[in-house]
Amino acid sequence: MSVPPPSAEARSAAAERLAGLATPPGALGRLGELSVWVAATQGAVPPAPISNVRAVIFAGDHGVSDHGVSAFPKSITPAMVRTFLRGRAGVSVLAAQHDVSVRVLDLGVDDDLAGVDAAVTAYKIRRGSGAIHLEDALSPEETRAAIAAGETVAAEEIAAGAQLLISGDMGIGNTTPAAALIAASFGLPAAEVAGRGTGVDEDGLARKISVIQQALDRAGDRSADPVDTLTALGSADLAASAGFMAAAARAGVPVLLDGVISVAAGVMADRLAPGAAAWFAAGHRSTEPAQTLALDKLGLEPLLDLGMRLGEGSGAVAAVPLIRSAALLLADVALLADL
Amino acid sequence: MSVPPPSAEARSAAAERLAGLATPPGALGRLGELSVWVAATQGAVPPAPISNVRAVIFAGDHGVSDHGVSAFPKSITPAMVRTFLRGRAGVSVLAAQHDVSVRVLDLGVDDDLAGVDAAVTAYKIRRGSGAIHLEDALSPEETRAAIAAGETVAAEEIAAGAQLLISGDMGIGNTTPAAALIAASFGLPAAEVAGRGTGVDEDGLARKISVIQQALDRAGDRSADPVDTLTALGSADLAASAGFMAAAARAGVPVLLDGVISVAAGVMADRLAPGAAAWFAAGHRSTEPAQTLALDKLGLEPLLDLGMRLGEGSGAVAAVPLIRSAALLLADVALLADL
Repeated sequence: MSVPPPSAEARSAAAERLAGLATPPGALGRLGELSVWVAATQGAVPPAPISNVRAVIFAGDHGVSDHGVSAFPKSITPAMVRTFLRGRAGVSVLAAQHDVSVRVLDLGVDDDLAGVDAAVTAYKIRRGSGAIHLEDALSPEETRAAIAAGETVAAEEIAAGAQLLISGDMGIGNTTPAAALIAASFGLPAAEVAGRGTGVDEDGLARKISVIQQALDRAGDRSADPVDTLTALGSADLAASAGFMAAAARAGVPVLLDGVISVAAGVMADRLAPGAAAWFAAGHRSTEPAQTLALDKLGLEPLLDLGMRLGEGSGAVAAVPLIRSAALLLADVALLADL
Repeated sequence: MSVPPPSAEARSAAAERLAGLATPPGALGRLGELSVWVAATQGAVPPAPISNVRAVIFAGDHGVSDHGVSAFPKSITPAMVRTFLRGRAGVSVLAAQHDVSVRVLDLGVDDDLAGVDAAVTAYKIRRGSGAIHLEDALSPEETRAAIAAGETVAAEEIAAGAQLLISGDMGIGNTTPAAALIAASFGLPAAEVAGRGTGVDEDGLARKISVIQQALDRAGDRSADPVDTLTALGSADLAASAGFMAAAARAGVPVLLDGVISVAAGVMADRLAPGAAAWFAAGHRSTEPAQTLALDKLGLEPLLDLGMRLGEGSGAVAAVPLIRSAALLLADVALLADL
C-alpha cells in the first residue's frame, strides 16, 4: 500500500513564499529548502511552529553480539535502558535541551529488566533476536508483531500531538543487522556497508563483514520481500522501528532520521510502505558507511555532519532546532512586500 | 598585546571527563571536542550551561557598493536596520527561537536613520566608508574610534552577562572589504577570495575581483599593520566588529563566528590581539570562498554547512544550540563510574 506524498500544492505555495522573503534569493540555503518540505508535510503555508517533537527509542539485543562484532558486551543494553529512564544518556540530555519527549521501549533486550516500569516492556517480542549469520532474527509471526507494535506506538505518539517523530535505538551489536538490511535492500556487498559501530578494531571489522556476508547469503531470495528481509536479517527493535516510521508516513507525520539503525529502519519502512521516504528528513551523517549509502539511495542529505556515532536518536535530536528554524523562518521573516 | 589562551588545565580535565562519560569513546564527535573547548574557555569542568548568548549586528555601508560589486542597492542597508528593529529579519527569527539577544548598531550606514532609537546610532563613525579601490575606507582616527566602539560594546555586553558573543553584520557591499581584509592578511590574490555575496552574476564577480585587487594594490605595504589594513581596506562596521571580538577574547569570553564578514573581523581581531582566535569557534560555513580560506588559516572547522549566505550573524545564531549541547552533554551525561 503506497503512501501519498506531502502536499504538492503546499510545496509550491511555500516555494513562492520563500522567494518573497526579504532575503537574497537562496540565502537561507538548506534551511530554505527544508522550510518548503516542512510546509509540504503540514499542508500549510506558512507552516506551524514544530513544538511537539517525540522520540521513541526501540531497544533490543542481537545474537551477533556474541560473535565478536561489537566493542561492548550485551549487558550494556539493559544498563543503557536504565540510563535513559534516569534521563542521563546523551539523547536524554539533548532531548531535555530541545523539549523533545523521549520514550524508551524494550522490544528485544536480552534481560528481564526487573523493576523497570511495565510500560517499557509492554511491547517486548522476545529476549534477543537471532544471530543473523546462523539463523533468522525472528519468526515471521514475531516480525509481524514487532511491525504492528511500532505502528501502535506511532499512533500513540501521534495521538499525543507529535508534529515530528524520531526513532532512536539502543542495542549492542545493532549496526550489524542494520548494515545487513541496507545491503539486502540495495544489493550491496557486506564490505561496503560494514562500519566500526561503537569502535571495533580491524579484526572486529573483518568479523563483522564476514557475519554480514554470511547473513546476506543465508537470506538469499528472501531479501526481495521486506517482511521476509526483517525476519531473516533484522531484529525485533528494527522491525518495530520500521513499522513506526511507515505508520508515521501513512498518517502524514514527518520523521527525522538518525544514524544507521534509524536509516535502516527507514529503508525498510519505505519498502513496507512505498513512498514513505518522502516524509523523512535526515538529521545527521553518522560515521557508518551504510548510513551514507542508504541516505543517497533515499535522496536525503543530512543536516548535521559532526562525526557523531552515539545512536539513541541523538543525531536526530541534535538537529531538531534546525528543522524548527526552517519552519519559523518561512513563517516569521518579513516579506519583501512588507518592507 | 597578546591574549592568554583558554585554560589548559580545564581543557585537560574536560578531556578526562569526556573520556569517562557513559558513551563509546569519540561517539559525541565534534560535540565532544567542542565541549572540551567550552570548558577551557570557562575554566570550569563541567562547564556551566550557556544561557546568556548575545549578538551585536554592526551595520554600515561601503563605497564599493556604487561600483557594481553587489546585487542590491545600498538603500537596503537602512531598510534592513529597521527590519532588525522590528524583529523580522532572518537573524531576529533565529535569535528569538534560541533566546539570543540581538542589538543592532549603526557604525557607518549611509543614511540618517531618522526616527530610529538614538541608541542605534550612538556609535556612528560616518555615513558610508570609502570605496576601497579608490580611497581609504576610513581615516586613521576613524579606524581607532571604530575599534574602540567595538571594545566598548563588548564590555557592555559582557557586563550584561554574555557567556558567548556573536558579531553579525549588515551592509550592502560588505563582502568586498571583508574579502579584501582576508586577502591582505594572508597574502592571497583577489581571484581566490572573491565570492558572489548576495548573488552577483559573472560580470559582477569580475568587477568585484578587479575592485579587490585594485584595493590590495593600493594598500600595498600598509597591509602589514592591522590598524592600517582596516583604514585602507575595511570599514567602520568591520573595524568595530574586530574591536568587539578582540575585547571579548581579552576578557575571556568566547565568540561564535558567522560568515565571511564576521570571520574577516575575527582575522583582524586576531591580528590586533594575537591569540584571540583561540577564543573563537566557527558557527557555519558560508558560500564565500574567503570565509573557508580564513577559517582554515585560523584552524577552525564550522559546525554547520547548510549553504547559508544571509549574513546578519544568522549562521552563528543557527549554531548556538550545538554549542549549548556540547556544554550540557559534558555536564549531564552519566559517567561510566555511575552506571
